[in-house]
Amino acid sequence: MKWQELNSERCSIARALYVVGDRWTILVLRECYRGVTRFDKFESRLKIPRRILSERLKKLVEEGLLVKEQYQNHRLRFDYLLTDKGWELRPVLLSLLAWGDKYLAEGEPPMSLRHEACGHVTVPALVCSACGEPVDPREIKSFPTHKAAPKTEAG
Amino acid sequence: MKWQELNSERCSIARALYVVGDRWTILVLRECYRGVTRFDKFESRLKIPRRILSERLKKLVEEGLLVKEQYQNHRLRFDYLLTDKGWELRPVLLSLLAWGDKYLAEGEPPMSLRHEACGHVTVPALVCSACGEPVDPREIKSFPTHKAAPKTEAG
Repeated sequence: MKWQELNSERCSIARALYVVGDRWTILVLRECYRGVTRFDKFESRLKIPRRILSERLKKLVEEGLLVKEQYQNHRLRFDYLLTDKGWELRPVLLSLLAWGDKYLAEGEPPMSLRHEACGHVTVPALVCSACGEPVDPREIKSFPTHKAAPKTEAG
Repeated sequence: MKWQELNSERCSIARALYVVGDRWTILVLRECYRGVTRFDKFESRLKIPRRILSERLKKLVEEGLLVKEQYQNHRLRFDYLLTDKGWELRPVLLSLLAWGDKYLAEGEPPMSLRHEACGHVTVPALVCSACGEPVDPREIKSFPTHKAAPKTEAG
């Protein structure tokens, strides 16, 4: 399989990777979630070549995760703003962060998170939409949607 | 910044991407979560060149997400088994899946998930560890850990 074929695979993970699986794209989105909107700011924070940054922003706009909005009546300057589709990818980064904090931060996570709605420091975690209990990653089984899920119908 | 420098950045997302940010690595892990353990099976399902697959598996073993275990007394054949560190990356893929299902599956998610603990079909979602409420991605703010979090202390 070639990378370009991912988009046609019948798998939402593969398709999602086709859109955001590029190495730098996730870091561009990290900056968006931190409030960065302008090209120069992305560039100075990420220290990546302008050409690469420009391509990644363009793809995020094309794919509908960001929208470009002109600022200060300056016809060549834009803010890159997150759409709902862009915001809703954030759980992927929050999950990467939690894992990196646990395994790669040598016990000293550099960044913490606050849940503005309740005001507390938070470590977001996945819960089951059916029972509300925390999800043990070993206890999730995937199956083709068109096949019945007997336990569900019985349970 | 070069890709190789990510690992030394003081950011758990960047470090995590250094380990698993490669385009094929996430798909190798997807197969692990589906129960695949053997080289030939990875190869036939992913249809990627043996050399690339071999490199990705090697890196996942080096980084401690998989362990190699000899099978059937066959000195050159191994099962690749997930460690805790490997399992605990699964929320990243579950979050990618949920996003891909919502935005890229044209209303027909090919795969569904069952939570074995409760027996029901599930769409795992992030909740706040402090208040237990679902997390709106716009309501999470990150801040350097060494700085105080005033709202938390007050809240």
